[in-house]
Amino acid sequence: GPANNSAEPVAAEQSGAAGFEVSMNGKLRIITINKPTKKNAFSQEMYSNFAKLLKNAAEDPNTTLVAVTGAGNFFSSGNDLSNFTSITGSISEAAEQGRRTLNNFVSSLIDFPKPIIGVVNGPALGIACTILGLMDAVYATDRGWFQTPFSALGQSPEACSSYTFPKLMGSSKANEMLLFNKKITAVEACKLGLITEVFQDANFQNEVWPKLKEWSELPIKSLVYSKQLSRQFDRELLHKVNDAECERLLERWQSEDCMEAIMKFFNKNS
Amino acid sequence: GPANNSAEPVAAEQSGAAGFEVSMNGKLRIITINKPTKKNAFSQEMYSNFAKLLKNAAEDPNTTLVAVTGAGNFFSSGNDLSNFTSITGSISEAAEQGRRTLNNFVSSLIDFPKPIIGVVNGPALGIACTILGLMDAVYATDRGWFQTPFSALGQSPEACSSYTFPKLMGSSKANEMLLFNKKITAVEACKLGLITEVFQDANFQNEVWPKLKEWSELPIKSLVYSKQLSRQFDRELLHKVNDAECERLLERWQSEDCMEAIMKFFNKNS
Amino acid sequence: GPANNSAEPVAAEQSGAAGFEVSMNGKLRIITINKPTKKNAFSQEMYSNFAKLLKNAAEDPNTTLVAVTGAGNFFSSGNDLSNFTSITGSISEAAEQGRRTLNNFVSSLIDFPKPIIGVVNGPALGIACTILGLMDAVYATDRGWFQTPFSALGQSPEACSSYTFPKLMGSSKANEMLLFNKKITAVEACKLGLITEVFQDANFQNEVWPKLKEWSELPIKSLVYSKQLSRQFDRELLHKVNDAECERLLERWQSEDCMEAIMKFFNKNS
Repeated sequence: GPANNSAEPVAAEQSGAAGFEVSMNGKLRIITINKPTKKNAFSQEMYSNFAKLLKNAAEDPNTTLVAVTGAGNFFSSGNDLSNFTSITGSISEAAEQGRRTLNNFVSSLIDFPKPIIGVVNGPALGIACTILGLMDAVYATDRGWFQTPFSALGQSPEACSSYTFPKLMGSSKANEMLLFNKKITAVEACKLGLITEVFQDANFQNEVWPKLKEWSELPIKSLVYSKQLSRQFDRELLHKVNDAECERLLERWQSEDCMEAIMKFFNKNS
Repeated sequence: GPANNSAEPVAAEQSGAAGFEVSMNGKLRIITINKPTKKNAFSQEMYSNFAKLLKNAAEDPNTTLVAVTGAGNFFSSGNDLSNFTSITGSISEAAEQGRRTLNNFVSSLIDFPKPIIGVVNGPALGIACTILGLMDAVYATDRGWFQTPFSALGQSPEACSSYTFPKLMGSSKANEMLLFNKKITAVEACKLGLITEVFQDANFQNEVWPKLKEWSELPIKSLVYSKQLSRQFDRELLHKVNDAECERLLERWQSEDCMEAIMKFFNKNS
Repeated sequence: GPANNSAEPVAAEQSGAAGFEVSMNGKLRIITINKPTKKNAFSQEMYSNFAKLLKNAAEDPNTTLVAVTGAGNFFSSGNDLSNFTSITGSISEAAEQGRRTLNNFVSSLIDFPKPIIGVVNGPALGIACTILGLMDAVYATDRGWFQTPFSALGQSPEACSSYTFPKLMGSSKANEMLLFNKKITAVEACKLGLITEVFQDANFQNEVWPKLKEWSELPIKSLVYSKQLSRQFDRELLHKVNDAECERLLERWQSEDCMEAIMKFFNKNS
C-alpha cells in the first residue's frame, strides 16, 4: 500500500473485503479504507466488511497491532449518504437493517482485543471521526480536519461518541461537535484528546509507521492484558451506549428532519 | 436586555421571577440574572425562581436553546451570604429548607432536556461557578474569573461539582479549586474544560449571541436527543451526587467552621 | 528533612518505617521516601511500611494534610527489580505475597481520608508514577520525568492507572504510557493532568512548601468531607480495578515475558 512500503498484502483478506486493502508489516496489520473516488465513504457493505476484517485480525496469532488508515487524500468522509437514496424495499426495513449493521460495526470495535491505532491521513467526518474515540491511539496529519454534522443532517451521535467524546474532551467541547456541528483542525482535535499526536503532512508516513512497527514487537500478552484492564470496566456501558445510539438513529433515519436534510444535501451537490 | 439587542422580553415570565429577566430572540431563550446591585448573588427566593424558569423553558415549544447570563459586570457572585444572617426561625429548620431549595435548583439543571449555555459576562463565584459544569457549553469574557472558596467558608462542594469538576479537569486541578480555594482566570478555566471558549471582552456579546441564535435554528429533536444520549447514563449518578452534597451542606451550614467563617467574612466587609 | 527546613522529625514514626522519614510542619505531615542510594526504589518492605505510615497519618488528629516527596535527586525509580531476584522460596509463593503487598499498598491510598499531595522532586517511574493518579494534587520540578515501562518488562498497569490515567489524560495518551512505554517530561505530564503544576527546579522547594503549609491550616472537616464527596462514588470501582490489576500481575510475574525482560535488564546493567 502507499502507506507503508515494507508491508505485504494479505491475500486471503482480499476476497470478501470490498472497500478495503489489508497488508502485514511483520506483526503489524494495516487495514486501508480503499475507495478514494468516494473519499473512502462507508457503504452498507463496508461496515460489515470492516467488522469481518477485525474478526480476522483478532484471530490471527501473527497480528500484534492493527492500524487503520485511508487511501488517497481522505481518511474517510464517513457514511456514504447514497446509502439513503439507494434503498430498494421499505424505508423501515432499510432503517432496521442499517441499525443492525451499525450496531455490529461499532461492537466489533468495542470488543476488539488487540491495540488498534488510527493513522489519519486526511479529513475524518461523521462515523470516521466518531470511531476514533474507540481506538487506542490516533495519529493524524496536520492536513486532517474533523466534523460530525449530526444535527445539520437531522441525525444523532453514533459509535459511542455520546460517551467517548465527553469523556475525552469534556462535555462542553463535545457538545460543540456533537450538537452544534463544529469543524475542528487536527491541532485542535489533539488538544481535545481525540488525536494523540499531530504530524506535518510531509513527515507523517515516515514518522508514524516505524513507531507502530516497533510497538508491534512488544510482548503481545502485556499489550492485550493492559488493554483489557483499561476497557473491562466500561465495556458493558459502551455496549449500552451503542444500543441506545442505534435505537435513536433508527428513529432519526425515518424522521422528516433527516429526509429533508438529506434531500437538501443532494440538491446542493447536484 | 443589554445582552442581546434583538431579544424581546417574555411578559408572562416577569411575574414570579424576581431576580431574573427573560427574553426571546427567535427560538433562543435568554435568562438574565438581574440583581446587579448585589453582584447577581442568589437569594433563597432566586434559587426557586430559577428552577421555575427552567421548567417554563422546557415546556415552551418555541424554545430550542436556553442561554443564562448576568446583568452588569458580574455573572454572579454565588450564594448571597446574607441568606445566613437573615434567618428568622431555628437554624436547623433554615438549613433543612436551604438543603431542599438547593437540591431542587440543582436537579432542575440535571434534568433540563434542551441545550443550556452559559454566557459568562464576568466573574462567577461559588454556585455560579459550579453550575457551569452542568451546562452544555459555556462562553466567557476574558474579564471573568472563577472561584469556589468552599473550605475558606467551612463549606463543601455543590451543584455536582465534586463529580463534574474532576471529570472535566482531572481530580488534581479540581481539588485546587474545590478543596484549596484556588482562583482562576477565564483562560485557565478554558484550558481546564470548565469554559468552552474565551472571548475578548470588547467582542464578547457580538460574537456569542449570533452563534447561539444560529444554533437555536437547528432541528430541536436532534439537539434534545443528542443531549439525552450524552446525559442518560450519568443522570442517576448526578442525582446521587447532588443528594450527597446537599446532605453534607446541611451538616456544614450548622457547623462551627461555617459560622466562624461567615462571621469573619461579615466583620471583614463591614 | 532537606525538603522543608521548619519541619520536625516525628520520632515515633522512625521505627518500623525503614526506607522513609516522617516529619511535621504544623499540621502538615511530610513523608519522605528515603533510599537515595537506590534512587528511592520500593523494596517489598517499603510497600508495607508506606501503608502503615498512611494509617498513622489518617489517625493523627494533628495531621490535616500529607505530602509525599523523595530524598535526593529522584522522587522514586519505582519497584526495586531486585525484589524479583531476591526470592528465597517458590516463585508462586513470592508472587502471591507480592500481590497481597501491592494490593494493600494501593488500597491504603484509595482509602486515605485526608488530602495527600505529591511533591515530586525528580523522576518518577513505574509504581512511583502510577500512584500519582491517586493523589489529590501533584507538584513537580521541571527536572522530573515520568515513565511506566510495563510492556517493556512483560508486566501490566498497577495502582489503578488502567483507570486513573485514561480518566485524567484520555485513553489514547494513557495508552502511549501504559501500553507503549512512552517517557514524558514534567511539562507534558502537566498538560495531561497527571501533574497539577510544574516549577523551575531552583524555586521548587521554596514555592511548594509554603503553599502546602497554608492549606494545612484550612478547616480539616471541609477538606476531608470534600475529598470524601469526590471519591465516594468511585471508591468501590477503584478497589475492583486494584484487584483486577493485582490478579493480572500475579500471572505476569510468573510469565516467561516477565522473566526474560527482567533478566535482560540485569544483564544490560551488570
